[in-house]
Amino acid sequence: MAFWFPGYTVPDFSSPPLRDAPLVRFAPVERAGVAPDGYHATSIFPEYFHVEPGRWELLRESRMDCVVVQRPGGALDVVEFRRLQVGDRVALGRGENGEDGIYVHAEAFVEDEGRGDKFAFRTRLTRETSFSIDYDEFYDLLRYERDHGFIVWVLGPALVFDRDARDAFCALIHRGYVHGLLAGNALAVHDVEAALFGTALGQEIYSKRLAPLGHYHHLDAINRVRALGSLKAAVAAGVITDGIMHAALRRGIPVVLAGSIRDDGPLPEVVADVYAAQDRMRAVVRRATTIVALATQLHAIATGNMAPSYRVLEDGTVRPVFFYTVDMSEFAVQKLANRGSLTARSLLTNVQDFVVTVERGLRRREAGTEKTL
Amino acid sequence: MAFWFPGYTVPDFSSPPLRDAPLVRFAPVERAGVAPDGYHATSIFPEYFHVEPGRWELLRESRMDCVVVQRPGGALDVVEFRRLQVGDRVALGRGENGEDGIYVHAEAFVEDEGRGDKFAFRTRLTRETSFSIDYDEFYDLLRYERDHGFIVWVLGPALVFDRDARDAFCALIHRGYVHGLLAGNALAVHDVEAALFGTALGQEIYSKRLAPLGHYHHLDAINRVRALGSLKAAVAAGVITDGIMHAALRRGIPVVLAGSIRDDGPLPEVVADVYAAQDRMRAVVRRATTIVALATQLHAIATGNMAPSYRVLEDGTVRPVFFYTVDMSEFAVQKLANRGSLTARSLLTNVQDFVVTVERGLRRREAGTEKTL
Amino acid sequence: MAFWFPGYTVPDFSSPPLRDAPLVRFAPVERAGVAPDGYHATSIFPEYFHVEPGRWELLRESRMDCVVVQRPGGALDVVEFRRLQVGDRVALGRGENGEDGIYVHAEAFVEDEGRGDKFAFRTRLTRETSFSIDYDEFYDLLRYERDHGFIVWVLGPALVFDRDARDAFCALIHRGYVHGLLAGNALAVHDVEAALFGTALGQEIYSKRLAPLGHYHHLDAINRVRALGSLKAAVAAGVITDGIMHAALRRGIPVVLAGSIRDDGPLPEVVADVYAAQDRMRAVVRRATTIVALATQLHAIATGNMAPSYRVLEDGTVRPVFFYTVDMSEFAVQKLANRGSLTARSLLTNVQDFVVTVERGLRRREAGTEKTL
Amino acid sequence: MAFWFPGYTVPDFSSPPLRDAPLVRFAPVERAGVAPDGYHATSIFPEYFHVEPGRWELLRESRMDCVVVQRPGGALDVVEFRRLQVGDRVALGRGENGEDGIYVHAEAFVEDEGRGDKFAFRTRLTRETSFSIDYDEFYDLLRYERDHGFIVWVLGPALVFDRDARDAFCALIHRGYVHGLLAGNALAVHDVEAALFGTALGQEIYSKRLAPLGHYHHLDAINRVRALGSLKAAVAAGVITDGIMHAALRRGIPVVLAGSIRDDGPLPEVVADVYAAQDRMRAVVRRATTIVALATQLHAIATGNMAPSYRVLEDGTVRPVFFYTVDMSEFAVQKLANRGSLTARSLLTNVQDFVVTVERGLRRREAGTEKTL
Repeated sequence: MAFWFPGYTVPDFSSPPLRDAPLVRFAPVERAGVAPDGYHATSIFPEYFHVEPGRWELLRESRMDCVVVQRPGGALDVVEFRRLQVGDRVALGRGENGEDGIYVHAEAFVEDEGRGDKFAFRTRLTRETSFSIDYDEFYDLLRYERDHGFIVWVLGPALVFDRDARDAFCALIHRGYVHGLLAGNALAVHDVEAALFGTALGQEIYSKRLAPLGHYHHLDAINRVRALGSLKAAVAAGVITDGIMHAALRRGIPVVLAGSIRDDGPLPEVVADVYAAQDRMRAVVRRATTIVALATQLHAIATGNMAPSYRVLEDGTVRPVFFYTVDMSEFAVQKLANRGSLTARSLLTNVQDFVVTVERGLRRREAGTEKTL
Repeated sequence: MAFWFPGYTVPDFSSPPLRDAPLVRFAPVERAGVAPDGYHATSIFPEYFHVEPGRWELLRESRMDCVVVQRPGGALDVVEFRRLQVGDRVALGRGENGEDGIYVHAEAFVEDEGRGDKFAFRTRLTRETSFSIDYDEFYDLLRYERDHGFIVWVLGPALVFDRDARDAFCALIHRGYVHGLLAGNALAVHDVEAALFGTALGQEIYSKRLAPLGHYHHLDAINRVRALGSLKAAVAAGVITDGIMHAALRRGIPVVLAGSIRDDGPLPEVVADVYAAQDRMRAVVRRATTIVALATQLHAIATGNMAPSYRVLEDGTVRPVFFYTVDMSEFAVQKLANRGSLTARSLLTNVQDFVVTVERGLRRREAGTEKTL
Repeated sequence: MAFWFPGYTVPDFSSPPLRDAPLVRFAPVERAGVAPDGYHATSIFPEYFHVEPGRWELLRESRMDCVVVQRPGGALDVVEFRRLQVGDRVALGRGENGEDGIYVHAEAFVEDEGRGDKFAFRTRLTRETSFSIDYDEFYDLLRYERDHGFIVWVLGPALVFDRDARDAFCALIHRGYVHGLLAGNALAVHDVEAALFGTALGQEIYSKRLAPLGHYHHLDAINRVRALGSLKAAVAAGVITDGIMHAALRRGIPVVLAGSIRDDGPLPEVVADVYAAQDRMRAVVRRATTIVALATQLHAIATGNMAPSYRVLEDGTVRPVFFYTVDMSEFAVQKLANRGSLTARSLLTNVQDFVVTVERGLRRREAGTEKTL
Repeated sequence: MAFWFPGYTVPDFSSPPLRDAPLVRFAPVERAGVAPDGYHATSIFPEYFHVEPGRWELLRESRMDCVVVQRPGGALDVVEFRRLQVGDRVALGRGENGEDGIYVHAEAFVEDEGRGDKFAFRTRLTRETSFSIDYDEFYDLLRYERDHGFIVWVLGPALVFDRDARDAFCALIHRGYVHGLLAGNALAVHDVEAALFGTALGQEIYSKRLAPLGHYHHLDAINRVRALGSLKAAVAAGVITDGIMHAALRRGIPVVLAGSIRDDGPLPEVVADVYAAQDRMRAVVRRATTIVALATQLHAIATGNMAPSYRVLEDGTVRPVFFYTVDMSEFAVQKLANRGSLTARSLLTNVQDFVVTVERGLRRREAGTEKTL
């Protein structure tokens, strides 16, 4: 199957109700970090603002739960409440169909869904859903995005507890399938512990033996990097010679390690202020065309919050942003949906298997041998 | 809140397309247990069969995945494939909107759902869904059904692992909220073990102490009942003096214990042939107006398979059949939905808490003290 | 890594307390299906019975929760309560260390566990446990067992919902890794539906499209096989031309399809009486050296109940029986342990990925290319 | 049952090996935030340091994964790596039995466990474990701690999605069972949204209706509090008149709202720097005698990381710190154990039911009516 994604449908602004819509109104911020009454909040969908008679402007680099600020010169920025400055002009209006000069384009990429029977089995996504096609489509997607897109991975710490999964992810980095990394302190710490001691939280990542006094490995790994000043320095000094951090830093891939209250250490690169971390994460997510979240509820939801369903390319083309989550529980998947990230595609499995399978699948495709092995 | 259930909408047979629908056709069974080509299979919904010009007959005591047999005299029976006899006249046709003389009435009880926003949070049922109103409605429902309906409980074994939950369920029996019981060997065995030894699988059901050689309690309980010939005999002989089996048998409540390959023993009343067990279960389910399945996937799905979404009362009134499942995992809930039991209401919690809470809630309501405690 | 399993330690019968142990006593069954008071119940471990002064006999083909019957001639049989006949001589005694002439050899295969720290992380098995080594050991085990053992697979229906998993399992059959199959009606029905229509419960097993009126596929598949009289006949007639049932029946692999109350149909080969099904299952399990249960709680626990931790080979060698479960939830794994199947090894993942990964891993090993792909 | 907790066993320092143990050694910090080689890391257990011949000093206010700093004057402080200052004298040594002058007292409160059988069922904690006794002990514990201890609650956001659970928790606050609160932005935001609009994330917390444009309620709640400057101000201004934040702030209970990358807003009181948040949390945890974590993995693990298994009271008495977690999944429970919080007691259920049940149970006990209702 060749790679394909659904075309973008531009709304028809020349017919009612949009033809007759008023211009969008703006009101100034009077207190920093506080939006004016009646502000419009963004969704994950493309949204158009009627800024001049007959001219509807599409938001670029959107995300949900933000407000829209019109900059001097007219550019529309999608801004978190906490970043609002006094005087910022914030778009007003909650109507979604042009009533307030705003059009929320929820069905921009809608695909054919076919007719529904009155009675049918298997309408819900569960662990028993078939995932063969998702893998195949994911291979095609990744191969396309490697060359034409920007693939952001959001990693939970479990990924590096397992040797094969860690190796497979490093291979994905080396072969160009990773353009940005979002994770927390734990992912990096366990990865470094594996590099230094072959363990994660004291357990060998292949044999599963609990190393004697192994819990010190965790702290020693942190302490050692802190002594060197940074992960970057530890890689440069030849102290860290394998693993995900090593591979990512060597290749200059943007990595954001966001702090959390669970952290030991932390490692020097970890961003202690979570809102600064959000800003750093969003800087990566703005470039994303595909996002893959592996076994992390915290980071997946955080990233889902700031990821729109579409991206406007430099040439003006609008394309979907693909959001995948891989998790073991239906709950995690539903929770993401309940926070509004409706367009995520989910695979229910262990991320260890997922990453190993994906790495092999891509290798076979690259080798053109998918038929034989 | 007073108890209320949604009214039944009778289809409009006097307008197209139903007005112009053909009569339903039938074909005879040629081999026992095998339906003729083109058979119609039933759903959980009310279904009408155009048996004479202008006369549409509603199926009574329906269930999904069966065929419809017209008996001599004209009565329509909903019959499992395995019960088909040579010569049975089976209804044909798969159109659901009258094309084949059959109308599947999927929206018979549809309630107002309100308008949907383009963008919304919390559209999925999870453990984080609010369940306060479900409890309150359940109390009202049970109080109504105790006097006017037929409440069938489907029990997984976990219910009797816990002293308070077991006591609470016995209280529900004693106070008239249990009209039929569907379960397996394990539920009854653990319940009897609790009666004889105070343990379940060797663990005391209150203190959680593992009794010395406690695993013998399980086998001794079974062996003792087998020696007496039946649970009924053991109750009559004063050997079993408390618990769910005791309470149900004393009150003459119909109990079906269906066999499974997991069973030890089994207890004498357990039905070894699973299709005979299905028949016995369905005989209870035919009378049900409310079904509550607690912590059992096997029995919940089995019961869901044979429970229609409606019941025709003796006076011809059509009312909904309520189906509740209580389970700990979103997976169990979705799996039930994936098998077609779309109308089930689910509470995600531990059945121990559910039963204890329900028993207390009903007691407070009966005492008219819901405000004070 | 070469394949290896832990050696068997024969108990020291020449030293106290075993040296001084009495002979085991027996008492006759007085009522069919009921054991005499004080009966001994078996465990999953090797057990020795002191049948003559100085001669301790090891149970062959044991399983837990049964009694031990001494046949005329002296042979010791491990017998379910329900199979006891009047006059059967049943071993008595609950002491496990020779007090009653019975020795339960719980540490027959115990491996070195290493010393424990007072404080350690990661002592519990979860989805975050590393499974790389389990895969590698599993490959070695399966390659050994293919030629020298007897591999029994216990399958939940989810396996055939996915095209790649279904194909992979068929490949395992064709390449000799499957010697016995235990499953239920649903697994076989979905597999046949996939063969006939490319769907399972109406959903295409690759594209996931819901076929129009797809729920009929499920019933049509059953009805068609019932019309032909058996799965075997349907394979012979060329009606079923691919899938797991096809592959297993073609190769003459013993298959037991045990009935359950959830069943539609059922297919003709399904055993309606669950205790007859247990007997049929145990006939397969008696031969097993490795058992692998995939995504089925019901069948996994049932099989776990009847699987001992060891097997006595024809030459008298005692070797372990390996029991693997693959499931998505920690609960399923713990539940198996709570029923006494303590020796099971568990992988927490989606069985779709597991089977696909195993099939590929074995293929690479067979090809001697595990290094390169 | 009267409340009771296990007595503390003081180690025997007068016998070998402790009698002959060397003094503990210290080394200075040379770089801020970095421990010297060979540092000792703390566990959750009481630890004694041999500071002068014959004098072993017990750590006060310990927590795991920290180092021990001897202050001028001799006091021993348990310090996170990130708080180490140049010149701090850090204890060295990894032996746990006095070899390095340090004794880790892992069995300080060990209770009688009884003998174990070779073969037993039900050795694992799951959702099927009986929890009746846990509730009863919890009531006794809370009533004791209300007057003699310090009860810290760690709350996940789900608690306020449900009206009855939110009301019940408020009642616990009002009746004196809550002495400290640890939570995140989401808990407070949903609670305030409920106070202002009766919804949480746009869904009514009793009726479950999705309010029109309900997702704005979430943002409006945040924006309004931000406009007022703080939760405290919003309560003082009479804008927030019910709920958990209202009750806690009114009673002057210490509340720490720790930031996370998932946050919208945030509310003004939320601590953006996660390590500052850790410090604030630990200030509360230092006083804790009982900690109860409800439906939050992030905050539960964070709190578990900083909670020791014991507390030294002002009079020198050593008592256990009780740590309860309530969650729906075995995974969450095991994950906490895998991070070293071995002494946590877990109840597997929905926190909604847990809180409602606990509030009612305590009320009955207070009223002395536990027998009658």
